[in-house]
Amino acid sequence: MPSERIRVAVVGASGYTGAELLRILVSHPRARVTTVMARRAAGQRIDEVFPHLTGRLALHVEAFDADAVARSADVAFAALPHGESAPVVMALRQRGVTVLDLSADFRLTDPAAWGRWYGSADHPDHPAPALLAEAVYGLPERYRDRLAGAGLVAVPGCYPTASILAVAPLLDRGLVTVDGIVIDAKSGASGAGRSPAQSTHLPEAGEGVRAYKVAGSHRHTPEIEQELGKAASAAVRLLFTPHLLPMSRGILSCVYAAPADPDRDDDSYRRALAEAYAGEPFVDVLAPGRLPDTAHVRGSNRVHVTAVYDRRSRRVLALSAIDNLVKGAAGQAVQCMNLVLGLDETSGLDQAPLFP
Amino acid sequence: MPSERIRVAVVGASGYTGAELLRILVSHPRARVTTVMARRAAGQRIDEVFPHLTGRLALHVEAFDADAVARSADVAFAALPHGESAPVVMALRQRGVTVLDLSADFRLTDPAAWGRWYGSADHPDHPAPALLAEAVYGLPERYRDRLAGAGLVAVPGCYPTASILAVAPLLDRGLVTVDGIVIDAKSGASGAGRSPAQSTHLPEAGEGVRAYKVAGSHRHTPEIEQELGKAASAAVRLLFTPHLLPMSRGILSCVYAAPADPDRDDDSYRRALAEAYAGEPFVDVLAPGRLPDTAHVRGSNRVHVTAVYDRRSRRVLALSAIDNLVKGAAGQAVQCMNLVLGLDETSGLDQAPLFP
Amino acid sequence: MPSERIRVAVVGASGYTGAELLRILVSHPRARVTTVMARRAAGQRIDEVFPHLTGRLALHVEAFDADAVARSADVAFAALPHGESAPVVMALRQRGVTVLDLSADFRLTDPAAWGRWYGSADHPDHPAPALLAEAVYGLPERYRDRLAGAGLVAVPGCYPTASILAVAPLLDRGLVTVDGIVIDAKSGASGAGRSPAQSTHLPEAGEGVRAYKVAGSHRHTPEIEQELGKAASAAVRLLFTPHLLPMSRGILSCVYAAPADPDRDDDSYRRALAEAYAGEPFVDVLAPGRLPDTAHVRGSNRVHVTAVYDRRSRRVLALSAIDNLVKGAAGQAVQCMNLVLGLDETSGLDQAPLFP
Amino acid sequence: MPSERIRVAVVGASGYTGAELLRILVSHPRARVTTVMARRAAGQRIDEVFPHLTGRLALHVEAFDADAVARSADVAFAALPHGESAPVVMALRQRGVTVLDLSADFRLTDPAAWGRWYGSADHPDHPAPALLAEAVYGLPERYRDRLAGAGLVAVPGCYPTASILAVAPLLDRGLVTVDGIVIDAKSGASGAGRSPAQSTHLPEAGEGVRAYKVAGSHRHTPEIEQELGKAASAAVRLLFTPHLLPMSRGILSCVYAAPADPDRDDDSYRRALAEAYAGEPFVDVLAPGRLPDTAHVRGSNRVHVTAVYDRRSRRVLALSAIDNLVKGAAGQAVQCMNLVLGLDETSGLDQAPLFP
Repeated sequence: MPSERIRVAVVGASGYTGAELLRILVSHPRARVTTVMARRAAGQRIDEVFPHLTGRLALHVEAFDADAVARSADVAFAALPHGESAPVVMALRQRGVTVLDLSADFRLTDPAAWGRWYGSADHPDHPAPALLAEAVYGLPERYRDRLAGAGLVAVPGCYPTASILAVAPLLDRGLVTVDGIVIDAKSGASGAGRSPAQSTHLPEAGEGVRAYKVAGSHRHTPEIEQELGKAASAAVRLLFTPHLLPMSRGILSCVYAAPADPDRDDDSYRRALAEAYAGEPFVDVLAPGRLPDTAHVRGSNRVHVTAVYDRRSRRVLALSAIDNLVKGAAGQAVQCMNLVLGLDETSGLDQAPLFP
Repeated sequence: MPSERIRVAVVGASGYTGAELLRILVSHPRARVTTVMARRAAGQRIDEVFPHLTGRLALHVEAFDADAVARSADVAFAALPHGESAPVVMALRQRGVTVLDLSADFRLTDPAAWGRWYGSADHPDHPAPALLAEAVYGLPERYRDRLAGAGLVAVPGCYPTASILAVAPLLDRGLVTVDGIVIDAKSGASGAGRSPAQSTHLPEAGEGVRAYKVAGSHRHTPEIEQELGKAASAAVRLLFTPHLLPMSRGILSCVYAAPADPDRDDDSYRRALAEAYAGEPFVDVLAPGRLPDTAHVRGSNRVHVTAVYDRRSRRVLALSAIDNLVKGAAGQAVQCMNLVLGLDETSGLDQAPLFP
Repeated sequence: MPSERIRVAVVGASGYTGAELLRILVSHPRARVTTVMARRAAGQRIDEVFPHLTGRLALHVEAFDADAVARSADVAFAALPHGESAPVVMALRQRGVTVLDLSADFRLTDPAAWGRWYGSADHPDHPAPALLAEAVYGLPERYRDRLAGAGLVAVPGCYPTASILAVAPLLDRGLVTVDGIVIDAKSGASGAGRSPAQSTHLPEAGEGVRAYKVAGSHRHTPEIEQELGKAASAAVRLLFTPHLLPMSRGILSCVYAAPADPDRDDDSYRRALAEAYAGEPFVDVLAPGRLPDTAHVRGSNRVHVTAVYDRRSRRVLALSAIDNLVKGAAGQAVQCMNLVLGLDETSGLDQAPLFP
Repeated sequence: MPSERIRVAVVGASGYTGAELLRILVSHPRARVTTVMARRAAGQRIDEVFPHLTGRLALHVEAFDADAVARSADVAFAALPHGESAPVVMALRQRGVTVLDLSADFRLTDPAAWGRWYGSADHPDHPAPALLAEAVYGLPERYRDRLAGAGLVAVPGCYPTASILAVAPLLDRGLVTVDGIVIDAKSGASGAGRSPAQSTHLPEAGEGVRAYKVAGSHRHTPEIEQELGKAASAAVRLLFTPHLLPMSRGILSCVYAAPADPDRDDDSYRRALAEAYAGEPFVDVLAPGRLPDTAHVRGSNRVHVTAVYDRRSRRVLALSAIDNLVKGAAGQAVQCMNLVLGLDETSGLDQAPLFP
């Protein structure tokens, strides 16, 4: 019955990920947003919170209520901070709601890893370890088969999405070694969220670049290592350096690795990506000589990826560009929803990038 | 037969307006891009010219050929420089192709005005005056009834779209006078086109603002005066000052005018806009206290508009924000096409703005 | 005695105006910063508050103490919010310290005007009306003679500096009328101060433009009207519209006015500016055909100004560009200090603009 | 005789490096710009070419003439493209003019390396190999002693300056190994020069990031390798990846290297930098926990540098931030001039960074 739409709730709708979910879902041909929840903005109309939704969505924001979600929605997206998300997800799963979780709470399969990277003095342990077994890591290019019918999807982080897609096929095929991988990633400021801060205050961040959370202190590190470790069938310890750039959207991830065989044909690495992503609806492996630019994927769920080899220094560089709020968050979550529900994977996601 | 799609050609596809037409049309549910023409880029694949279309459109760019357009397309969009467009339009009209022209060639109803503002020593006169009678000014909010079935649509300029929509209803209703109107408009750099220039070189234009073509020398002046004159049923001579801003997309137009009756209720002007645009699918008259921001309409065909009155200085300010490449060009052209062909007016244009 | 330096204190040093004062003063050949005070940052080293001063200034920030200032400094700059500044200024004046005040507290000569525009329920009246008579409005191009030896200088606001310098000479000479003046001014985000806010959060403000405090509600309105009224020897009621632009520094002010004699030579207005500013060390009246760009004055105390006449619409446009933090605040304050103390007016201010 | 100023010529003054030399030199207390030459702009007043110099420098641009330089100047700065510079330098040296060369022509000590990286079919060989022995590599922090009295200084490239300063002391001391060094550097668009291009057209470059000249194809690679090789007393083959960022000025260089001893104290690397740069007038080794940001050095000759160690992945990251046009070009050239002539090294360079 094509006219019957999936009823969708967005919980944690007052941040950028929430806004982006709403932007995508209001144009999704098979979904209907019925419920919008956010603690901070409860009581406001959504277009007061997000003026760009004026004329597109007229709902009022409500405080979170699991029963209300269960009554009004078939599927819920949770766009909440780590730690806050798990109890919400648990309440929704207990009521049979399919959940796409955009927090970090269900991305790490080892609950002890969650404790090490996300735990605090007050909350040292994972808040809902029993749900970890159910959670599917929501990277369709790696786990498409497991997503159909899943009840809980842990949508990957923005940096991990960009970084894993750039290099995992090279590890799958044993083309690069696991030792000494360095990831130098550059992000727009929307990745820091909607709360104003000195570091994202336009006069200070509008013309400047800096690294942050260096020396392996960024929490996306274990997520990337987990997934690249699976690709390599070996433990991976890598150095991940994120950067804040003077732009709103986009991540460019540069993954440096040593080749397994330094004498392999220069184009081998790019061709391996092309082989891995043949048929992927959102991944474009660029032609030789072309390089990813975040300006070419902005506002879309697309991934531009390539790999090059520097024979002089015997080092492989895999590069990918995504929109951190789309393929790095909301778009990927909708892609997962489509797969969970058996819809066309690209449904609601066929917008071409906004360029220039 | 809903599955049969309109066959569409884009002529002059290598600039930003062409790119934006393609971006919108590849997701249009009722259109199919069959033909892409551009002198400069002929022979290239369109995704070499515009990498953001990678994976979305695989056509090769051809040199212009009116017969080829007539064979392959029902509708053609012409996104060519003024003067170059008229002969192309003429050739296409002679072959029965419906044309949406995004140049200035058919916007001014008086061919002498074309000569004054667009003529040159080599080409002092309008290149195709016979077609002027047929052309409909493609501003649906003002000329919707005349667009159905039109053979030639003169799609308005970006500044005129923003400016006319902000103030024409106030002139329609006699709320402001025609004397002393000042329009101070601010545009992103994409309005200057795709050709690199010193004035849009990132290091020089990336953090700075300047006015250009001041003192009534910008060619959009007569177009605005023509349409506001129709609204007021009186000749209008106004001062239009465009500005270049350090951003890519967006126009904010500020129209200053004297009130016909200085004692009218402060909110009268905003309410008149709300009355004029009730039912308009793309125009949002903002609630009292809210003001337009180009960031809230970017990437969409929407218009945010309001008006305020300053009782102290006895002056009305009407403000509007649009995306210059969408409602100011390609989106409006597609909106016109939809109306010409009797399709749903919002077809292909229901994307929410890209924010942030 | 050229080697003896003026001892200078900066009170309210944790904001952008304070930072800019320090930036200028550390290179001032006749000044030495001895004291840096700020409530919020007290106890920190100044280069922790402002990393760009690393290696240039090693003082610790102290809480405000009028006696300490009087002991350590000959001159104090007060860069505090309006209302908070007046008591500080009073305490410093009582101790004989020469004060350059960058707040609005002593700019309006009429204390009732202060109450109307800056008063609150808790503080309806001017906090130090007795000092108003002493205060000199610190716009050297208008009040140079009164600055020598002054004890208290009210340094003008950023928008008033740009706007007054653009048009006051035209009013002085009776070239334009006082009725119907409209000022459309565009500012970089540093004008909003250092405190992070949604409206200056990079993702939302980095690519967009909007007007704010429209319809005569911005507090710089009475200051501009006061000074233009003096120029015209008549009451002025004008409409002032400020805008926030996606850049850090710079104000472009566009002043629209009606000509007293519409038949005057087009270049008359520009020539009047050239005449008024002949010999001014920081004001450049641009050659015919050139227009101000904030990118050409950034980081400097310079003013680029011109005026054009549109004979068609019978309207004069005067334009000026300044750096809001330099000529619009800290640089102008140092220029005033130089004049107060009888130093070379350009001392410490001879840096050329930073371009690109 | 302090009042006698050095007479200075700038050859190749129409680009950004030329503009920046003029900006610095017009405020230099010991220099006087007597001669400005540039082929493209010959005949124009310099403030027509660079409006930000209005009121600061009134010279006309001349075509290059070595005799005229020799008559009018003691010192010449050559800011010309590689290959074009060498003949100019030769002509000036033959006439006894001290030359600061900002091109790449005298940076590589091996003329064969010049041929490999800069040669073309028409010009396969170094244009002036005889001068190579005379040239001093103008990085004062490495070659201060050799600069006094030098006749020809090869001022380093922007990326090499940032990269060498970040990591050379670690190689000097044997703290990191020469194998597997990766440099991921990020630059503002002014590094691409003043000529407009698609890649630096504001609409396309204003919000996006991309790598370019990857896989060891950027010409700064051999220059970095040469100098790091000297530091390590061993051949260095590294992978250098430059990026273009949506900003005007600034380079952030991230140098990844393997520790010689993985068990050394985490802060060892930063402390080695602090030891190396103690007493350096322009280099700030940041306190632990602070990281370089190009916004904190913009418009100044300062270098912010630090190093961190990631024990998990056993990798050292050295980071530096400079202004590419100042410490990466014009400022460093003036610093070298000061040293060549025995002036105070910081003369003309004591401006604090422009923040925000």
